[in-house]
Amino acid sequence: MTTTPLVEARAWVAGIFARNGASDAAAASVARALVGAEAEGLKGHGLSRIPTYLAMLKANKIDGRAVPTASRVRAATLMVDAANGFAYPAIDLVAETLPRIAAETGIAAAAIARSNHAGALGAHVERLAEAGLVTLFFANTPEAIAPAGGTKAVFGTNPIAFACPLPGRAPIVVDLALSAVARGNIVAAKQKGETIPEGWALDAEGRPTTDPDAALKGTMVALGGAKGATLALMVEVLAAALTGAHLAFEASSFLDDKGPPPNTGQMIIAVDPAGFGHGAFGPRITALAGAIEAQAGTRLPGERRRQLRQKAETEGLVLPATLVEAHGAP
Amino acid sequence: MTTTPLVEARAWVAGIFARNGASDAAAASVARALVGAEAEGLKGHGLSRIPTYLAMLKANKIDGRAVPTASRVRAATLMVDAANGFAYPAIDLVAETLPRIAAETGIAAAAIARSNHAGALGAHVERLAEAGLVTLFFANTPEAIAPAGGTKAVFGTNPIAFACPLPGRAPIVVDLALSAVARGNIVAAKQKGETIPEGWALDAEGRPTTDPDAALKGTMVALGGAKGATLALMVEVLAAALTGAHLAFEASSFLDDKGPPPNTGQMIIAVDPAGFGHGAFGPRITALAGAIEAQAGTRLPGERRRQLRQKAETEGLVLPATLVEAHGAP
Repeated sequence: MTTTPLVEARAWVAGIFARNGASDAAAASVARALVGAEAEGLKGHGLSRIPTYLAMLKANKIDGRAVPTASRVRAATLMVDAANGFAYPAIDLVAETLPRIAAETGIAAAAIARSNHAGALGAHVERLAEAGLVTLFFANTPEAIAPAGGTKAVFGTNPIAFACPLPGRAPIVVDLALSAVARGNIVAAKQKGETIPEGWALDAEGRPTTDPDAALKGTMVALGGAKGATLALMVEVLAAALTGAHLAFEASSFLDDKGPPPNTGQMIIAVDPAGFGHGAFGPRITALAGAIEAQAGTRLPGERRRQLRQKAETEGLVLPATLVEAHGAP
Repeated sequence: MTTTPLVEARAWVAGIFARNGASDAAAASVARALVGAEAEGLKGHGLSRIPTYLAMLKANKIDGRAVPTASRVRAATLMVDAANGFAYPAIDLVAETLPRIAAETGIAAAAIARSNHAGALGAHVERLAEAGLVTLFFANTPEAIAPAGGTKAVFGTNPIAFACPLPGRAPIVVDLALSAVARGNIVAAKQKGETIPEGWALDAEGRPTTDPDAALKGTMVALGGAKGATLALMVEVLAAALTGAHLAFEASSFLDDKGPPPNTGQMIIAVDPAGFGHGAFGPRITALAGAIEAQAGTRLPGERRRQLRQKAETEGLVLPATLVEAHGAP
């Protein structure tokens, strides 16, 4: 199978977006995010997004020429307007700006509004951890999860990501959606004509279902049931209410060209481990990592994705045939 | 059944602690926390803790005369030393200090080390939400949950609490441990000679178990399995590595008089909703609450506990007979 080096894959993806209404800066940012996710094995946030992103560009649901802006509202807060463009340039702006604020104030937060699909969050928090910061990332997404006791989706699958510097090693990186499984698993079961396990989804009346069609008309089960739905509410407050973005149930889909821009939001909180005046962080986090790795069968979160990325850096990526047919080979 | 008004119950509990080595200030703080939890129906964090707290005082595992201190290390960070006393006076100090810092900087964090059992976290975050702040609270606890793929406990049940002001109404209050169920449920099953459902606990070899004895020798299942264990890791980083406190697996038990002080930690992050320069927070959070409450069978997190508290404020509390026997009636 033909593989393409990552640097060429990024240029190829950037070219596709630049020819379809994105500025060079936005195209480069999107290409880096999508190729990065593909390299880490996260295909649902990788090159598979190209057709829907292009459809959203064409429908002005994404403004490919938007330039994100940031203003420091208080000593430790940054308000970022993604201006209905892609999320990635706004997140890049946060990654460039937040470290020096957090170094000054000890903790700092960036709120992003008028944003869009934030993709694989692990890469975003990893950048901030590489700059030395313990980082939390909360994003809301279009409606998927019902409140505990309810039947209609109010919250998104609302991922939480987290990264933590580890002395002398790559950071710990966590990225998890608050649905028990990704909705893509249900779509895949439907396409194969298979049923789904109980515990993945509820039908439109809030009953457990194994029928993918009924599941797609219903809601996603939250991680751990009611507790996960409550965490999804927490993310909605952080990523939408505090940023001024759309709530999940107001946001248009990330997956089609229908409706206005989604205007979802992201909240990024970064903490300087030196910001509490003690030198214990390095030894503490090293001890924690050691206690996890001392057990057979465990690994630190983020390890597997990093290994896949390193493999892709050596071996290159296989580009999806449908995309090569549609857009030409690199 | 005889009930005691809350104000008398608090004075009675404070008196017990003051006669057993606690300063008046610490005794009042502990009494408020325990009576508050009891009034909210959270008996596991309520008056049932009195005997173990007294045992820890007697063994110097809690210093009842400790005075917590806080220092503002950076513009937006507060380092709090609970000085191996009760957690509650340190949390009171944060509740008094953090709002004016967050109002200035937009977001602020308080790290508490040399701390202990933080009890029902909902009341702590509710106070900060009543001061107008969206508040996150992360606490670590002695070891209970194994890392994904492992068999030995490394993380505590590591609760996350969250509260959010709601215009014209009481705040939304979330308080959840990251174990699927509280360990108290397993102890209760053992006492009744019952088995436990699968999904609550794993035995010492990491296998699912329905035997409460095997469960108590093993580990607690995390909320949603591997994802919940990963969230417990995140809490461990925030509440212990960043505060300089003991990691879960280093901390002595909250439930006996054995060993040195637990030295667990808490991280409290407070955000001023006006700190991002837009006025959208109020309308957004009101819309979110409305979308939840529009569905039959739902309620906002924190409502039930508030109703129980209001009932207890009117009707008083029934004091446990064993405590009245041991310490005299109020």
